[in-house]
Amino acid sequence: MKNSYTGKEQYYGDYLALDKILNAQFPESDVKGVDAHDEMLFIIIHQAYELWFKQIMHETTSVINIFKDDNINDNSEAMQVVTHRLERVVEIWKLLVAQVKVLDTMTPMDFLDFRDLLTPASGFQSYQFRLLETKLGLKMEQRFEQKYYQKQLREEHIEGIEEAEKESSVFELLDKWLSRMPFWNEEKYWNNFEIPTGADKNLHPFWSSYRYVYQSGLMGSEKEEIAMKSFDELFFSDQEQRPVRLSAAASRAALFINLYREFPLLQQPYRLLSLILEIDELMATFRYKHIIMVRRMIGMRSGTGGSSGAGYLQGAMEKHQIFAEIAGIATYLIPRTKLPKLTAELSKVLSFHI
Amino acid sequence: MKNSYTGKEQYYGDYLALDKILNAQFPESDVKGVDAHDEMLFIIIHQAYELWFKQIMHETTSVINIFKDDNINDNSEAMQVVTHRLERVVEIWKLLVAQVKVLDTMTPMDFLDFRDLLTPASGFQSYQFRLLETKLGLKMEQRFEQKYYQKQLREEHIEGIEEAEKESSVFELLDKWLSRMPFWNEEKYWNNFEIPTGADKNLHPFWSSYRYVYQSGLMGSEKEEIAMKSFDELFFSDQEQRPVRLSAAASRAALFINLYREFPLLQQPYRLLSLILEIDELMATFRYKHIIMVRRMIGMRSGTGGSSGAGYLQGAMEKHQIFAEIAGIATYLIPRTKLPKLTAELSKVLSFHI
Amino acid sequence: MKNSYTGKEQYYGDYLALDKILNAQFPESDVKGVDAHDEMLFIIIHQAYELWFKQIMHETTSVINIFKDDNINDNSEAMQVVTHRLERVVEIWKLLVAQVKVLDTMTPMDFLDFRDLLTPASGFQSYQFRLLETKLGLKMEQRFEQKYYQKQLREEHIEGIEEAEKESSVFELLDKWLSRMPFWNEEKYWNNFEIPTGADKNLHPFWSSYRYVYQSGLMGSEKEEIAMKSFDELFFSDQEQRPVRLSAAASRAALFINLYREFPLLQQPYRLLSLILEIDELMATFRYKHIIMVRRMIGMRSGTGGSSGAGYLQGAMEKHQIFAEIAGIATYLIPRTKLPKLTAELSKVLSFHI
Amino acid sequence: MKNSYTGKEQYYGDYLALDKILNAQFPESDVKGVDAHDEMLFIIIHQAYELWFKQIMHETTSVINIFKDDNINDNSEAMQVVTHRLERVVEIWKLLVAQVKVLDTMTPMDFLDFRDLLTPASGFQSYQFRLLETKLGLKMEQRFEQKYYQKQLREEHIEGIEEAEKESSVFELLDKWLSRMPFWNEEKYWNNFEIPTGADKNLHPFWSSYRYVYQSGLMGSEKEEIAMKSFDELFFSDQEQRPVRLSAAASRAALFINLYREFPLLQQPYRLLSLILEIDELMATFRYKHIIMVRRMIGMRSGTGGSSGAGYLQGAMEKHQIFAEIAGIATYLIPRTKLPKLTAELSKVLSFHI
Repeated sequence: MKNSYTGKEQYYGDYLALDKILNAQFPESDVKGVDAHDEMLFIIIHQAYELWFKQIMHETTSVINIFKDDNINDNSEAMQVVTHRLERVVEIWKLLVAQVKVLDTMTPMDFLDFRDLLTPASGFQSYQFRLLETKLGLKMEQRFEQKYYQKQLREEHIEGIEEAEKESSVFELLDKWLSRMPFWNEEKYWNNFEIPTGADKNLHPFWSSYRYVYQSGLMGSEKEEIAMKSFDELFFSDQEQRPVRLSAAASRAALFINLYREFPLLQQPYRLLSLILEIDELMATFRYKHIIMVRRMIGMRSGTGGSSGAGYLQGAMEKHQIFAEIAGIATYLIPRTKLPKLTAELSKVLSFHI
Repeated sequence: MKNSYTGKEQYYGDYLALDKILNAQFPESDVKGVDAHDEMLFIIIHQAYELWFKQIMHETTSVINIFKDDNINDNSEAMQVVTHRLERVVEIWKLLVAQVKVLDTMTPMDFLDFRDLLTPASGFQSYQFRLLETKLGLKMEQRFEQKYYQKQLREEHIEGIEEAEKESSVFELLDKWLSRMPFWNEEKYWNNFEIPTGADKNLHPFWSSYRYVYQSGLMGSEKEEIAMKSFDELFFSDQEQRPVRLSAAASRAALFINLYREFPLLQQPYRLLSLILEIDELMATFRYKHIIMVRRMIGMRSGTGGSSGAGYLQGAMEKHQIFAEIAGIATYLIPRTKLPKLTAELSKVLSFHI
Repeated sequence: MKNSYTGKEQYYGDYLALDKILNAQFPESDVKGVDAHDEMLFIIIHQAYELWFKQIMHETTSVINIFKDDNINDNSEAMQVVTHRLERVVEIWKLLVAQVKVLDTMTPMDFLDFRDLLTPASGFQSYQFRLLETKLGLKMEQRFEQKYYQKQLREEHIEGIEEAEKESSVFELLDKWLSRMPFWNEEKYWNNFEIPTGADKNLHPFWSSYRYVYQSGLMGSEKEEIAMKSFDELFFSDQEQRPVRLSAAASRAALFINLYREFPLLQQPYRLLSLILEIDELMATFRYKHIIMVRRMIGMRSGTGGSSGAGYLQGAMEKHQIFAEIAGIATYLIPRTKLPKLTAELSKVLSFHI
Repeated sequence: MKNSYTGKEQYYGDYLALDKILNAQFPESDVKGVDAHDEMLFIIIHQAYELWFKQIMHETTSVINIFKDDNINDNSEAMQVVTHRLERVVEIWKLLVAQVKVLDTMTPMDFLDFRDLLTPASGFQSYQFRLLETKLGLKMEQRFEQKYYQKQLREEHIEGIEEAEKESSVFELLDKWLSRMPFWNEEKYWNNFEIPTGADKNLHPFWSSYRYVYQSGLMGSEKEEIAMKSFDELFFSDQEQRPVRLSAAASRAALFINLYREFPLLQQPYRLLSLILEIDELMATFRYKHIIMVRRMIGMRSGTGGSSGAGYLQGAMEKHQIFAEIAGIATYLIPRTKLPKLTAELSKVLSFHI
């Protein structure tokens, strides 16, 4: 086969454009005549990060495109493709977390050899990483030290992120998709559904039942009033008054999927939710490893970008979790033995055709 | 060869006492007739943790015993043995961090199958882990939520830890060993040492010089007054007034080792300091992974021991760093090109005999 | 909650039977008064391996029990439980591979301190590991150096393995389960199935078609005759004449699952096959890491059990792959664009009820 | 600080030349209008490999330059710099081994979407990887399937490798450095050295002694004649008749370093030998992981470059070990308790000046 660009027979180095990739390292210490052997490592590890960010973007964008369809066909390959690609994103994040270990081989003294030459550039300015956070669902106003943020990035990059904020994020599309869960309002699925005596029947039959069982199972050390207030807020409050971003309908669907994940139709959705949490966790771990690495490298000094160094990262780690409400679902689970039994009609629709 | 206990020819299973090890799993769900497949995993993973804690204890105790010698001979194998064993401890901690991934395969619903059966037992009660923290240098009064701590542990375990606190910890022995650095007070090493014009000469020649160079290198964004106050506090304040536990003499030695690690005599000491920091970091990462895992498992609910679950772990992660001052040394480094040059006399004593 | 054995309130150490686990290390060097610090590591790492083997056995046995059912209901939770547990087995094997790194911290000289005391015990004698291989499907007669094998193990352990061989292994149950794939013989699914002109129509419509497309896609460098002979042998030869263990019917089903994994009904089966291959690979990697470790430890000398050391392991690594035919399926795939299109009737039955 | 190329204030994206790095992915499937989502992954993972190969080359070249000095000063920082950089190379190889897991997320069917478009390009053609093997010490004539090798690579790349073969490799420089070990021939170190009765005194006092002790320690299962023949060949045969590449003098020095690694002067050399073995092992593991990955991807079919795919890699894995003789040293160690005691004169010269 010929290479479409060179016109020659395919060759590894041409196909991978290695002339570009391997000639894109420009250590400032070389220009300045400073002896700083480790600057090459510093450049290459960050380039490797950016290559992988591009790949994560490739996968994330494809997932967004699938979810933009208002009517994903559960019998198409869509959901499997989504979970497969998110599994890949998980593997990439694991690699990026592991990659920090290579940078750990640079000692503080070795970094000081060229640190001044980089000022005020900083990893904070990684446009792809910011964009990725945005595509997952992080908003400018949620960001830790939002002003510092806007001061550091180039105008064109801030604009790029603002543009991206206008597009649907994974968070928003996931909320919509969860909220569409179709079988709540069809009477046939709930006519024969049993509600325990004592349950408050003002809610949908399922939630009347579930709320009652959950409340009964609280342990002594958990204050009932506080626990049920959280429960009601998450699953039943109006959109305007919600303390959290995820809609009540989506929260209920997410809980339902966790509870009944054994049904074939809910297996891929359960997998999807698990993968999204895993990605959120790995990004937190990535930030965490950077905190530790930066502390080791510069102690309590300012970062090259003038940030508070490790302090900034710590704040970002705490505030930049995107799918916190999905993670919080675990708070509201009950033991399998107490699970309300679904009706035969609903069970059927959650199953294979055979 | 005969086995000393069975008297029979050595056999793998006898040698490893596998009859004990593999018959020590007692799932409560079996007794109670509850169906909880995953309880076995829960038991085995914690037993594996405890086996490894025993091994870490074995290595840590041997290191403490070596350091108890007030006069470690740099020409003996002592320092190499110490660094070798700490390298092993590092590898074990890496494994224990990775081991969390196996527990991540237990879902919250699977945990709920048997969670109640364990109450109020909790990982918090791992005596070996507490003892290990103590042997490294953590004191009862530094512990996060000290009272909760004392309420949860059995009397005999609290006493065991109190006993261990009376013994020399790695922290204390390291402080003493660093403080003994011998060549500061011998005039022959410093007679020809150059001090830059402008330096405050009230200090030891080396520190007069170093303090001056460090101060000159501060960047605009770093408030000079605050920076130098920290510097002076760490390296020169009296023991009674110190805001930190590590002595001033030990802090100076630790900085010196970081700066001149190329000299043969300082190579193993540098390695030692690096390994101790790596262990501190890995223990923090271990706690961090547990925070994330506990959050995934029980959300915001109380831990089985009635603790605030993830909240407790977060507090412990922040407060239980033991070698913070050693880590902070990075704040006070300067570029190699500006390093004060040691005298020929001192250089010689830091080198091999040849 | 009370502990069922002690009758006391649950406590971490009681629940985990730590008095047994942590008092089961008996270094021979202690008895003999030999100084061999690393023997403790040697004991503990092998005990940790055995604990994990017990857990893998727990999962494997539960998978076997599910598969023993001749009529697994695809709408039950069975398949999801199986894949979930195999995912856990995968994570455990990853851990066990990583665990070798801890043993790598023992140097050959440190091993020599106590190596003689263990003779002729050897890791080869791990009964659980042998049993695990058997439960997966390895037969005595397939084992590398079968006689050496039988000489080393205790009579009771050989008998245990012989007993286990009589039970259904994962390999056999998987073969049966694959062979049962139900829709081949129902005419309604194949009446409208298109067969390309030129295809040999003596086979089932699907295979007539697939064989033709596969043959057309062979590259120049692949000898057509040899390739098609392998194809026909794997997928169509009689059981008596097969060069491989997996039945033709199972081989065809495995290929079909790989080709049409997007259909909901085939997603968990595809996952199952992938996981089984991953376990086979990880066990090979585990053996491989041991080869390297043993070579580093004893070079070309005999193992403590008198085996040829690394040589034995190399042989075992090559011969003990259990699911080779499943792995070989990749040889017979074709690009998606050329896949025969299934009929609407068959597509429906591979889908959800909705 | 200004960027030397753009003249603008340093900015992360400029400094890392991200416009080059992130615009160097040219999927053939895009040009050909083929739907092959995973080709991007295929390109990016290989580019990441090549970036890291460049970094390994950077470190390896610096190590070679240090070793070219015929007279490395043990009191300079040279040896520490070498071991530090090799530690980094070890961490990078660990990362590259882990990186294979990301490629494992590409299924055979996903690869088939674009596999034909790459023919006959192949990972085999990675010039940097070949060059790296050469710089470590692999010679063209040792390569597995040498002719296939020369057919696949471009003329300019073969020439590049032939040029590199003329330069000193790590293997050759290491051999020279080991052979220079200085104290064998100085009588003062050996005058008081004790030789056990019964030892053959024709050798240097140390080797007379060591050979005798080693021979006495052979176990029954090891044929004495064969064992001693190997011993004599490795440590005493003439260069012309040696079955192996490493010189006898270097082999003796390597053994001596392993035996007496506790002496300060031998600590870094011991570390160096360990690191070199670790790199050799990690490269073998890297090849091994590729074998498994290729088998999973294409089964038994030919590689895109027309190679026998996994078969080629297997051969390379077995033949391309570079430091086999260093690894083999473990065969000839004896227990510490039987080590010949060095004289006080020699001990002193292996120690610090203090």
